[in-house]
Parts: sequence; structure tokens; C-alpha cells
Amino acid sequence: MNCILLPAENIAHETAQINAVSQVRHVTQVLGAKVGESLKIGQIGGQLGMASIESITQDCIQLCDVQLTTAPPPKLELTVILALPRPKVLRRLIMDMTALGVRDIILINSYRTQKSYWQSPMLERLDEFVLEGLQQGVDTIAPSIYLKKRFKPFVEDELAHLVTNGAIVAHPYSTQSFAHYIKKRSLDSLSPAQPDLHMQSVYGLPSLVCIGAEGGWIDYEIALLAAQGCTPVHIGPRILRTEAAVNALLGQWLL
Amino acid sequence: MNCILLPAENIAHETAQINAVSQVRHVTQVLGAKVGESLKIGQIGGQLGMASIESITQDCIQLCDVQLTTAPPPKLELTVILALPRPKVLRRLIMDMTALGVRDIILINSYRTQKSYWQSPMLERLDEFVLEGLQQGVDTIAPSIYLKKRFKPFVEDELAHLVTNGAIVAHPYSTQSFAHYIKKRSLDSLSPAQPDLHMQSVYGLPSLVCIGAEGGWIDYEIALLAAQGCTPVHIGPRILRTEAAVNALLGQWLL
Repeated sequence: MNCILLPAENIAHETAQINAVSQVRHVTQVLGAKVGESLKIGQIGGQLGMASIESITQDCIQLCDVQLTTAPPPKLELTVILALPRPKVLRRLIMDMTALGVRDIILINSYRTQKSYWQSPMLERLDEFVLEGLQQGVDTIAPSIYLKKRFKPFVEDELAHLVTNGAIVAHPYSTQSFAHYIKKRSLDSLSPAQPDLHMQSVYGLPSLVCIGAEGGWIDYEIALLAAQGCTPVHIGPRILRTEAAVNALLGQWLL
Repeated sequence: MNCILLPAENIAHETAQINAVSQVRHVTQVLGAKVGESLKIGQIGGQLGMASIESITQDCIQLCDVQLTTAPPPKLELTVILALPRPKVLRRLIMDMTALGVRDIILINSYRTQKSYWQSPMLERLDEFVLEGLQQGVDTIAPSIYLKKRFKPFVEDELAHLVTNGAIVAHPYSTQSFAHYIKKRSLDSLSPAQPDLHMQSVYGLPSLVCIGAEGGWIDYEIALLAAQGCTPVHIGPRILRTEAAVNALLGQWLL
């Protein structure tokens, strides 16, 4: 936790209370904070700032001098469509995409998603993972998360409306590289007379990314996604774990 | 496992044996492969290729028609210096850096590395994690891994020799962004008369990256690293988990 996020009802004027068990434990045990020290906090959905610790009990930390004056960082103009992964990695993936600032996350079914994943109790805990991600990434605005249990109807009926400014599907066996895709888009958008290096990455990146789970997409899925405007691209000859691939790919949006 | 890597002694002429428990289990249970089917294999330190399954017992899979004709992908011209992380995340970090193709990995002590991490039995298992990473990333050449338990002597006496083509230290509180660092380096290296967009990323990326563990580096460590030529850079206002940061940062080398 790089900041402690509190719901609006825990904040009043210049005072606030931390009463969630995990947050109280983090402040007292991990940070080892003491009365009088200051803490980086934020309001869920609101601003970031600082507060001072007024008192500490086992269940509650009372804060004073609450100043929430900093806007959260801008979200990425990005929708990630992710084949529902194993429950074990779902928590870290939601945390990481949230920390990276993804605006919309769509979890969809795929041929290689086991049916049992949709029954996992982890799916009831998405809000918790999002809060972890926001507190990691020092943000206050949660991404929107949508669950789409039927691949074909979603792709055929809903996906086209989401493809507004370029879309890719990560596929290790594609013939086009992501580097080539970005370069082509950025060159297309530049005036040949005045190439503007600075804007290259901003122009070249798509606003929608589809990423498979372990084992990736099958050819039928790639064809359906491509028919709706998602260009299949690879990121080199190396195949990464889903978690690593998500971070390696989305890391391009940080530069 | 996107390929099964075997030691040289398990391969003779056009035959080979898989007898490691985890590999036999993967082929039979995860892939569900049968006699007559083909498998993607490689020789540790050697070439990649294909083989056919001749027989399957509980302990051993016999392969025939072994053809190892494909060179592994090139390594990244990159050394990663990583503050030794919690044992729990060490496995995934070694796997991911290996899969990404990092050539040299140096695990060092830092102020925020707990002393107990150096006693972890996980440190005895690095070869195993490297093999997992190679089989994930479809590579055969292991990175070199070095353990440096003393920060200051390493940084003062050894680091300068490793800074050959640019070096950065990832630091969320740096004033310079990694994007600015890359752009500056690439513009410096380009002839103003003939800007070559294609080579931009190749020229701009450094050959050495220092990444902290949870909690990052302390100011003293940043100062010592900077004195040896490592430029502190941030990758935006968001702070990522070590694992996510490593992949998000190294993802830049894939494009």
C-alpha cells in the first residue's frame, strides 16, 4: 500500500477514521507508524492527500489535519479484454491492471478458460483486488469491470462499438509485430513534413487490447476478434505468462 | 511450458528421453499428448526443434525423430540489477526475467531487503526457476545470475565496469521520466539530418537497469548508484509491484 484509501463516509471535515482490519494492520505493523506522524491517504473516487495520526487503537486509527488536495493521476485511455484466467492469478492481474490505470476491464470466456473459473469465489472479491491495486498505484478511481460469459455474442454484438481508436489482440503466432503496428499507425498519423517524435507513442498506441489466458486464443477466436477490427500482433518470439504479458504490453502506455 | 528442454545427456542422435517428473507430468497430464504425436523440445544451451513420442511410461517418455534445427531467440543486451525480493516473489521474477531474455541478472542486497531473504531455501532453487523461465519463453540459453550480498562494495568497485551503454535506476520519486531519458539518448545518437525512426528505440534503451524491491531504494542507495553512472528515472506517477514493474519496464525491450 503506497496510500490508504478511505470511503467518503470515513472522512468528515479535517478528520478521518481507518477501521478496515487490513489497513489498520498495514499502518501499525508494516509502516510502524506512530501518533503524530503523517500518512498518505485518499478518498475512494476522490482526491489524494495527507493526514496526521491522532490516535491508534487495535481497531481504529483516528486521523486529523486531513488535506485532500491532489487529483489522482489520469486513467489510461484503454480497455483491456482479458480471457478469464485461473483464479490464482486473477487477483494479481486485477491489481496490476488497476495500478497501471486501465480504465475498463472486460473479463470474457474463451476456449481455454476452464468452466470452473466462472464459479470461483475470487470473482466475488474483485472490489477488494481493485482497492489493493488503487492503494498500490496511488490512484482513487476504480476501473469499470465487466464479466462476459459468452464469447461469441459479446464479440459479434458488442465489441465493434468499443473499437474506437485502434485495437489489437496479443497473439504470439501472429505475423505482425506490435512494434510494426505502432510505427505504422504513428507514421500514418504524422504529417510527413513535420514528424513529431514526441507524439509518436501517443499516436501509435491502440485504445483496446485483447489478451488471452494460459494457452492463448484459438484460431477461431482470433478470426472472430480480427473480423471486429482487432489486429493480431506479437511482441517477439518469446511467450510470456499472462501476468508478465499484461504488464510487458501495458508498460508501453507508461512511456 | 511452451517447450520441453532436455540436458545434452538425454539426447543421442535422433532419440531422446524425458525423465524429469515435472516434464513427464506436463506432457501426459497438461498436454495430454499420446504416442505418435509431436512435441516442441530443445537442448539446454543448444537448439530448439521437434520430436515424436515413441513410448510413454509413468517415469519416462521416449522420443524419436528428434530434429533440433532452430537457433534460440537472441538474448536482450541487458543486465538487470535487482534488490533481492521476498522469497515468495523471487521464483516468478527469475522466471519472468529469464522468459524475457535478460542476459545477466545480479541479485543484490539493499536497505529494504530483509536479512532473512538471503537465508531462503529458494536461493538454492534458482536453476529450477531459470529452467521454468526458458521453457515458458521458448529459449535454451540460461541467463547468468550473480549474488552480491554487500551493496556498497559491489556498487563502488564493480558497477562502473558494467555501465557500458547507458544505465538507469528505477525510482518512482525521480524527476526525470524514462521516456525522456530514452528520447534524449536516441536524439543524441541520431544524425539531425537523417532521423531514423526505426532505430530510435534500439538506440535509446540502456544496457543496465537497477530495480528495487518492495519499498524501493533509499536516497543513499540512489546517490551511490547515480555516482556510478545510473540515471534515476520514473515510469509515471503510478507505483507498481516489483514483479509488475520489472515486466512493464523490460517490456520496452520487446518492441
